[in-house]
Amino acid sequence: MIVSENVIQKVNGHNIAAPKGFSAGGIHCGIKHKKLDLGLIVSDVQASAAAVYTTNQIQAAPLTVTKESISKEQLLQTVIVNSGNANACTGTQGMADAYEMRSLVSQKLGISDHLTAVASTGVIGEMLPMDTVRSGIQSIQADSTLKSSIDFSQSILTTDKVMKNTTYRFEVDGKEVTISGTAKGSGMIHPNMATMLGFVTTDASIEPEALHEALKNAVDRTFNCITVDGDTSTNDMVLILANGCAENSTLKPGHKDWGVFQEALRIVCEDLGKMIAKDGEGATKLIETKVTGTATDEDARKIAKTIVGSPLVKTAVFGCDANWGRVMAAVGYSGVPIDIGSLEIYIGPVCVVKEGMPVSFSEQDVIDYLKHHEILIEVKAGNLEGYGTAWGCDLTYDYVQINASYRT
Amino acid sequence: MIVSENVIQKVNGHNIAAPKGFSAGGIHCGIKHKKLDLGLIVSDVQASAAAVYTTNQIQAAPLTVTKESISKEQLLQTVIVNSGNANACTGTQGMADAYEMRSLVSQKLGISDHLTAVASTGVIGEMLPMDTVRSGIQSIQADSTLKSSIDFSQSILTTDKVMKNTTYRFEVDGKEVTISGTAKGSGMIHPNMATMLGFVTTDASIEPEALHEALKNAVDRTFNCITVDGDTSTNDMVLILANGCAENSTLKPGHKDWGVFQEALRIVCEDLGKMIAKDGEGATKLIETKVTGTATDEDARKIAKTIVGSPLVKTAVFGCDANWGRVMAAVGYSGVPIDIGSLEIYIGPVCVVKEGMPVSFSEQDVIDYLKHHEILIEVKAGNLEGYGTAWGCDLTYDYVQINASYRT
Repeated sequence: MIVSENVIQKVNGHNIAAPKGFSAGGIHCGIKHKKLDLGLIVSDVQASAAAVYTTNQIQAAPLTVTKESISKEQLLQTVIVNSGNANACTGTQGMADAYEMRSLVSQKLGISDHLTAVASTGVIGEMLPMDTVRSGIQSIQADSTLKSSIDFSQSILTTDKVMKNTTYRFEVDGKEVTISGTAKGSGMIHPNMATMLGFVTTDASIEPEALHEALKNAVDRTFNCITVDGDTSTNDMVLILANGCAENSTLKPGHKDWGVFQEALRIVCEDLGKMIAKDGEGATKLIETKVTGTATDEDARKIAKTIVGSPLVKTAVFGCDANWGRVMAAVGYSGVPIDIGSLEIYIGPVCVVKEGMPVSFSEQDVIDYLKHHEILIEVKAGNLEGYGTAWGCDLTYDYVQINASYRT
Repeated sequence: MIVSENVIQKVNGHNIAAPKGFSAGGIHCGIKHKKLDLGLIVSDVQASAAAVYTTNQIQAAPLTVTKESISKEQLLQTVIVNSGNANACTGTQGMADAYEMRSLVSQKLGISDHLTAVASTGVIGEMLPMDTVRSGIQSIQADSTLKSSIDFSQSILTTDKVMKNTTYRFEVDGKEVTISGTAKGSGMIHPNMATMLGFVTTDASIEPEALHEALKNAVDRTFNCITVDGDTSTNDMVLILANGCAENSTLKPGHKDWGVFQEALRIVCEDLGKMIAKDGEGATKLIETKVTGTATDEDARKIAKTIVGSPLVKTAVFGCDANWGRVMAAVGYSGVPIDIGSLEIYIGPVCVVKEGMPVSFSEQDVIDYLKHHEILIEVKAGNLEGYGTAWGCDLTYDYVQINASYRT
């Protein structure tokens, strides 16, 4: 569906606690050396909740605990997040630690355990320093100021260079609804959830099943279409809380504004996904690939993800090399059947391949275009209706540097 | 099957023309600036022939021509190869050029067109400089000296730092049989054939169907288990010629020495595959991953390839970082069901994960081990019978440097 720009409006200067009835906070508790490492989101009232998780078979303890929380009533009231330690591959002790984080926060807020979600990100395979975490949970506070929201957004970062926030407003039943998201993640980013955490809050009232469906659809088209290095982490999760404080009639399929909400959620997720791709480890450029003409949207996304995931395309973009052959090779090995005779490739405004064949173009025009910080590669893979977009980043010396010495 | 070391013997100081009845040569014809760029293999007599090709949907013109040649009678007598230009994405003109290369060589040798195979490697999407190629084909000569074999091995290289050769001898019916291989490839190397060319010659007499089956099996376990960067090229091919000059009774399933031949072919392909992985663009280390305990060998290979293909594992090996969590994450997202409770991971001699959990180990031991140039990572993924091996290399600054400026 097409949504007029007036209907869903971007709001600057706001953050994860912008929707009514939400508060947030972030502190340094001591898991990391200096940076903020513990964050908290609280809703005044119980909120409809949904989440999608990494597809990695090895899932970190907090994911199991959060799944258990949400499955009980599809409601949450708070989320506790630590960075610096992923609590992954930590066995029964790790499970006990995640459960303890959940109950400490629940006790502090005077709510049932299953209303608390837990998330962790950082190094795999080391036990959480629970003394530190315990005293951190004791001292952390949440409020609705922008500063505290920013503290939260900072507290979930690992190798990220910048925090990622986005907020939109739109109307449901004539009531103002706000939706806000924040995310972390810059390495191990690949379709199917990577070392990435995304948190979305909204004051809309939404039926939980519908919320889950909407989140899944949005994530498939956004977070799952970004790739930094093809690695899929053990800890990824995107979580949404909808607390109903906007007092709209409950959104669900059939509600006249259901489409607007779905689109707003998709936009929030797309904003965050693009920010993650752009902040990919060592990245200097955001690469967006748009593919059309396939049999299905899924096919188009698969081609788009293959191109943006190709190390050879990524290094060519880094080096401003108009090497369209690498784009074409990636299209060819994507696994999606294509119509080679109608294949078209554009690097920015420059057509480089038409009817499956290279066309004469100004190499210098492409080189100049590739000097930008946001690069668009468009591919027409046939004459059918499918289309899709994916996002990634260039592959640079700094990616190697960051990852050759992550723990040292 | 287990083959005693005495049966299949490595022979040094020999190359692609070592098997009886083969000759080879390589020259600089002018496609590249200075280096050798045109190579020729000739058999005195018609040879059984088989090949496997890239799975990329976009296949270069020479592959189509070679497939057509082999399909006619499953016989070849000569192979012409150029480097510096892949003749890929070059449309009808590219097809005409590949056909012309084939007929020029066939005319020169006085044989039918379909007895000639054509291969190309290099930049995609530029037309072959056919005047240069024509005069090159006119002047190229083949003989059975080691020098000419080396010229051939040199003439097929692109960004490779070293040439790749291996030769073995064994007996069939008491007759001495020689098998020799040479290969190129260092970037765009991934399972399912990458920018990789492999040529194998043997003087054994072999039934063509059986030869094809044996080649496919060997390639699945060797060349298709190496990865440099996950990109699958448009031009890859492994080709074998068996000319029967050893005068053994024709090998095929049921022949008592069929197993020995299969094993010799597998070893030749494994040697070449490992040399390609080790010479991966910018690589400083060969990484070998051995996986056991899966339901099938294919599952084990899939896990092994996922580990060795992970940019995070590759950078950790480059940086001598004992980051076993990345190995574990890769096992988890390989797509193969694993028994987490019995998961074991070894980095060289050091056990880092047992029963799915990190064990206490000396970080310094692992760091010291990772300073070697050949790194072994072993994973036990369960208690079943499947096993498999894959090979790759570390990801370094030089990979980025080479690929950010390949054409400039």
